Amino acid sequence: MLAPSQLRCTAFLACLACALLASGAALSQDVGKKIVTEGGSNGATACVACHGEDGAGNAAANYPRLSELTAAYMVRQLEAYRNGSRSSPIMAPIAAALTAEESQAVSEYYARQDAPVKATTDDAELLARGRHLALEGDWDNEIPSCVSCHGPGGKGLGGAHFPALAGQHAGYITSQIQAWQNDERSNDADGLMQAISARLSEEQVQAVAAYFANLPVLDEQAVAAAGARLAQQRAQQADETAESGEYFTPPDEATIPDDDFGAMVRLGKQIFVDTQNHAGEFVGNAQNCVDCHINAGRKAGSSPMWAAWGMYPAYRAKNDRVNTMIDRIQGCFRFSMNGTPPPADSDVMTALLSYTYWLSQGAPIGESLPGRGYPELSAPDKEPSYDRGEKIYAKSCAVCHSEDGRGKSVDGQSVFPPLWGSGAYNWGAGMHRIQTAAEFIHANMPLGRGGELLSEQEAWDVAAFINKHPRPQDPRNEGDMGATAEKFHNHACYYNDFEGSIASDMVDD
Amino acid sequence: MLAPSQLRCTAFLACLACALLASGAALSQDVGKKIVTEGGSNGATACVACHGEDGAGNAAANYPRLSELTAAYMVRQLEAYRNGSRSSPIMAPIAAALTAEESQAVSEYYARQDAPVKATTDDAELLARGRHLALEGDWDNEIPSCVSCHGPGGKGLGGAHFPALAGQHAGYITSQIQAWQNDERSNDADGLMQAISARLSEEQVQAVAAYFANLPVLDEQAVAAAGARLAQQRAQQADETAESGEYFTPPDEATIPDDDFGAMVRLGKQIFVDTQNHAGEFVGNAQNCVDCHINAGRKAGSSPMWAAWGMYPAYRAKNDRVNTMIDRIQGCFRFSMNGTPPPADSDVMTALLSYTYWLSQGAPIGESLPGRGYPELSAPDKEPSYDRGEKIYAKSCAVCHSEDGRGKSVDGQSVFPPLWGSGAYNWGAGMHRIQTAAEFIHANMPLGRGGELLSEQEAWDVAAFINKHPRPQDPRNEGDMGATAEKFHNHACYYNDFEGSIASDMVDD
Repeated sequence: MLAPSQLRCTAFLACLACALLASGAALSQDVGKKIVTEGGSNGATACVACHGEDGAGNAAANYPRLSELTAAYMVRQLEAYRNGSRSSPIMAPIAAALTAEESQAVSEYYARQDAPVKATTDDAELLARGRHLALEGDWDNEIPSCVSCHGPGGKGLGGAHFPALAGQHAGYITSQIQAWQNDERSNDADGLMQAISARLSEEQVQAVAAYFANLPVLDEQAVAAAGARLAQQRAQQADETAESGEYFTPPDEATIPDDDFGAMVRLGKQIFVDTQNHAGEFVGNAQNCVDCHINAGRKAGSSPMWAAWGMYPAYRAKNDRVNTMIDRIQGCFRFSMNGTPPPADSDVMTALLSYTYWLSQGAPIGESLPGRGYPELSAPDKEPSYDRGEKIYAKSCAVCHSEDGRGKSVDGQSVFPPLWGSGAYNWGAGMHRIQTAAEFIHANMPLGRGGELLSEQEAWDVAAFINKHPRPQDPRNEGDMGATAEKFHNHACYYNDFEGSIASDMVDD
Repeated sequence: MLAPSQLRCTAFLACLACALLASGAALSQDVGKKIVTEGGSNGATACVACHGEDGAGNAAANYPRLSELTAAYMVRQLEAYRNGSRSSPIMAPIAAALTAEESQAVSEYYARQDAPVKATTDDAELLARGRHLALEGDWDNEIPSCVSCHGPGGKGLGGAHFPALAGQHAGYITSQIQAWQNDERSNDADGLMQAISARLSEEQVQAVAAYFANLPVLDEQAVAAAGARLAQQRAQQADETAESGEYFTPPDEATIPDDDFGAMVRLGKQIFVDTQNHAGEFVGNAQNCVDCHINAGRKAGSSPMWAAWGMYPAYRAKNDRVNTMIDRIQGCFRFSMNGTPPPADSDVMTALLSYTYWLSQGAPIGESLPGRGYPELSAPDKEPSYDRGEKIYAKSCAVCHSEDGRGKSVDGQSVFPPLWGSGAYNWGAGMHRIQTAAEFIHANMPLGRGGELLSEQEAWDVAAFINKHPRPQDPRNEGDMGATAEKFHNHACYYNDFEGSIASDMVDD
C-alpha cells in the first residue's frame, strides 16, 4: 500500500528534509526487499515464495495478500506468531527467525506494494448477501457491520489494528474467521473478533469473504440488482413473519417504499449514520447520530429511535418544558453534536423525523417499550474511580477511540467517535453525565461485546475516566461556569471539575 | 331577557331615533303586559296565573320559565301549539285564542323579563354528571354536547331556535325531553332533538336537567370537586376496560395527567375547540379546529386526530413534499382557518401536537385506522345540483348555519361555523372540494343525525350548493386565478367559477 506521505516525499525530493527522510527510507526499503526475495539474516525463508514479490499472496494455497495491509498491522502479526496468539506451523518459525528490525523492514516493504485484484466469483447474490452483512451487520445476532471497525469500504483503519479486508483472498478471510472460532487465533483486542466470529453462520462467512475479496473489482450494477431482489424477498418475509422476541422489531430496510416518502426515509438514514457528511452544517464536532444510537438507531438498549418516536411530545426537566420530537432532536444537535440545530422545517429535520417514524411502524403510541434508552444501572458498589477507569480504557477502549480519546476516522469519515476533546460531545450532552455514559458503555461497549465484557463497576469507572476529560463548553454557559454548574449540573458529573484542556488538534481527520 | 339593544336605547333616550323606537316599543310593551296580566282579546287566559308576571314559571306545577327565552322562540312555540307539533291541553286553546299580534306582544314582554333563579339541588355529583354531558356530550352514544347547539353556557342562540336552557326548571326540561321521546313534540328542525332525546338515558336526562336548572347559581367549587371525583372514577374504569368496538377509543379526558405535559394537552384541547379565543392570532376567519374534527377531534369519520397522528410524516400531493404533522397542522391554519400558521416552536403548535398525541395513546404507528378522515363516498348517481342543494340547505342547514351561510355565534364565540363568505374556509382548504364536503356532510351533518338524515345524493347536492358560494381567496393565488386554477384545482370544485361576492359583514359576531 502506498502511503500518502511517501507519495508526497517522492514528489518533493529536492527538498532537503525530504531527501534525508528518503535516504533513510531507501535504506529500509533495500533491507525489506532483500528479506522478501532472499530471506532473513537468521535463516528466515524468503517471503516471495508464498506472498509474491508484490504481496499478492496465493489464493489457491491460502497465503494472504499483504499489499493492502499496514506495516504496523504486519509487525503486530509477526509478533503474534512469536508469542503464540496466532498459530501457524509455517509462519511461527519464520517470524521467530526475523529480528525486530527485519520485521519492520519487511512489513514496510509489503505495505508499499499495490498488487492488482482479480474477480473470483460472479455470483451476484452471494456478493449481495456479503455486502449486506458487511455494511449493515446482523444485529438480530449481535453482529455489527464489518465496516464499523474495518472502516468505510473495508479499507482498514491504517494502524496496528482493524486491517483492510478489501482485496484479501476469500479463502484466507474464511480461514481466519474459522481460526477465531476455533481459538487458533486470539490476538484481537478484547476478543472482539473471537466473539463476533462465533456468531457468524457458515453461509455468512462465505458471503462476506467473497464480498471483500471482490470488493475492489465489484460489478456494482449486478450486485445492486441482486441486492434489490434479496431485499424484496426480505420485505415479503417481513410481511409474513409475526413479530416475536423480547424487543419491538423495526421494519426491514427492504420495506422502505420506493416513493417520495421512502426517499425521505433513506435520506434520514444517511443523515443518521453519517451526520458529518449529510448534515455537517449542523454539527460542531466529530459525532454522528449513530454513535449513541447503534445500528442506525435500531439497537435495543442503545436509545433506539423506534422506542423514542412514540413518547413525544413529553415534558423534559432538562429544559423545563414540553418537548416535541423536533425539540428533542434539536437538543441532540445542540449538545451531543455541539452544533446548531437544524430548523424545524428543514429537509434535514423532515428526513430525520421520517426515518425515525418509519422505524417505529406498528409500535404503540405513548407506550414505553422494552429496550428504550440505555438499560438503567444501579449505583456502583465503589465510588467510580478515574485511576481504575484509566486502566480499563487503555485495555478495552483505546484501540478504537485512541489513547488520547480523539477517536478514529478514515478519509474524513468518522469510524470511532471522539470521547473527549474538541471532537466530542459537549458538557451539555446527556452523555457527559457519569451515569448515562456508564449505562451506555455497559450495555453497548465494546461494539459487539456490549453487556458481556465489562462489569457494571468497570463501566462506572471508565465512564468517570472518560468524562473527567475536557470537552466543548456547555452552550448554556453564559460566562460564569460556577453559575452554570449550579443551574444545569445538579447531577454527578465533572463539569467545572475536569482535568486538562482541549488540544487544538483533537479532531482526527 | 333584557336585550343589549334595549339597554342602549334606554341610555340614549334623548336621541330622536331612539325616542321614536322607544315609543313603538312602549306601545307593544303595554299590549304584552295587558295580555299577561288580564288575558287576550279573544278570551285567552292571563299568562300570569301559570308563568308569573316576571316569567319565572312554576317549578312545582311544571310551568316553564319564559324570562330567558327570546320572543322569536316563544312566537314559534305558540304557533307549534296551534299547528299540533307541540301537544298541550293547557296551551293549545290559549295559543289558538291569541292573534298573531298578541302572540308577538306577549312574547316580547316575557323576553324582557329577568326573573331570579334559585338553586334546587346541592347534589354536586348529579350536577357534575349533568355538566359533563352538557359540555362534552356522550359521543359513544352519538349524543353531541348540549352547548354545541344551545350555545356557550346554555344561554341559547338568540333566534327562533335553540332556546336558552340555563335557569329553566329541571322538571320542565325533563318533561320536554320526554315529549320528544314520546312523539308529543316534533317542532324541531330535522328532528334533531327527537333523535338526540331518544338516545338519552333516564339518568342522563335527570342530570342534565338539574345542571341547566341550577347553572346560573351553581356552586362552582363543589361541582368542580365532584367532577374531579367522577373523572377519577372514569379514569380507573378506562384503565380497567379493554378497548372494544369498531373504532379506536381515545383515552378519557379524565386520564390527562396532572403535570406539565397534561397542562399542555389541556391547552391543546382548548385551542382545538375554541381556536378563535385561544389561538386567534393565527386564524383569519371564524373557524375552529373542532368544526371539521367533531367532538374535539375524537369522532370517527370526522377526521379524528387519533387516526392522523400515527400517519405522519407522509407525502402529500397537495404540496408535493413529505409533510410532518406540524406541516399538516400549519396547512389547516393556512387554508381551513384562512390564517397565518403558528410557528413550529410556538406554544400553540406544541399544545396542538401534545393534544393530538395524547388522543392517540395506544394507537399503532403507521397503521391507517378505521374511522380515519371522512368516509369515502362513491360518485353520485346524478350530477350534484346547486338547485336541489339550495332546497336541502334551506331545510336542513340554514337553521344552524344561517340562510346566508354566515353561521351563528354568541357573545363572540362561534357556535355554528360560517360555510361561505369571509368567515369561511378559503379556496385552498380541502373542504372547498365538492367531494370532501359531501363526505363530511353525509357522515356528520346535521350534528347528531350524521349518516342517517341525508342521502348520499343529498350530501353531494348540498355540498355543491355550499361550495359554489364565494369564500376567501386561495392563498397560493399570485394574481391570475386562471393560472391558480390550472395549477392547484385539478379536481371537482368551483374555484374561479363561483357565484356572487363576499359581503363585508359575512362574519357574524
